[in-house]
Amino acid sequence: MGGVNGANMKHVISIVVENKPGVLARVSALFARRGYNIESLAVGETEDPKVSRITLVVAGDEAILEQITKQLNKLIDVVKVIDFTQSSFVERELLLARIHVSNSTRQEIMQLIEIFRTRIIDVGEDTMIIELTGNEGKVDALIDLLRKFGIKELVRTGKVALLRGEKK
Amino acid sequence: MGGVNGANMKHVISIVVENKPGVLARVSALFARRGYNIESLAVGETEDPKVSRITLVVAGDEAILEQITKQLNKLIDVVKVIDFTQSSFVERELLLARIHVSNSTRQEIMQLIEIFRTRIIDVGEDTMIIELTGNEGKVDALIDLLRKFGIKELVRTGKVALLRGEKK
Repeated sequence: MGGVNGANMKHVISIVVENKPGVLARVSALFARRGYNIESLAVGETEDPKVSRITLVVAGDEAILEQITKQLNKLIDVVKVIDFTQSSFVERELLLARIHVSNSTRQEIMQLIEIFRTRIIDVGEDTMIIELTGNEGKVDALIDLLRKFGIKELVRTGKVALLRGEKK
Repeated sequence: MGGVNGANMKHVISIVVENKPGVLARVSALFARRGYNIESLAVGETEDPKVSRITLVVAGDEAILEQITKQLNKLIDVVKVIDFTQSSFVERELLLARIHVSNSTRQEIMQLIEIFRTRIIDVGEDTMIIELTGNEGKVDALIDLLRKFGIKELVRTGKVALLRGEKK
């Protein structure tokens, strides 16, 4: 780790934790204390209600991130830490966006929605809410294309990830 | 607020924050200090790279949650706090799950996947990774149905939400 190309690389880290009050605060404090900005973070319950799983994306110096990973492993409520960076993994995130729609833009928006396999989940007076699932690149691309129509509001889940399975 | 039926109701709260190191740690510490367990949390960037949006789900006493909301509004990096509880809103979350597949279960799994409009995003030796987007009820229902096949690993983003638009 810590090679020339590795400096400030984006890391996707999965942290399996006990589902208890204060765990998220302790994990995020560990990054904050070093001045690291967590770019995105998603935490939810797992198939075992006693266990939650945090997925976070952070960019930073390899050596310091390695130290943080070691400290995470020492936290009492942390079960497992996986840094996906050197592995083959699938990643997805979810976007909800409220976009402005007028009679003159409706057709163009509907075409974009079809190309990206986006779903419309709410329709208002002159807006609609769309839902998209994909990797970061796909989500970024749709946001860029929607900008000219007017994005009223937007929320992203941040990445979740799993290691790829063994191939036959 | 704080009525008999309101005690320990689940709240979905959206917090628009400046995209800076330490903000997530301060927000989650506010809940941790009161012993509140954050059930799920998702944070990601918005259309404005200087601003992030946190969506969290928390259950608890109405009066104390109102206090926490007030304190959130006082944090220097918090731009806006929206408690969706009394409003009409759309909510979605994203699930990735690695499930065990054998020749005898493959057909049944494929049927489930079709019914739920689940996508297969990776196939391994005797596992596959599926992706599902929906509200909490839909995601819970699929997890329950997949349990008997063997869920090897599972990650959920937690909810994201937007207020519904004005109807014509």
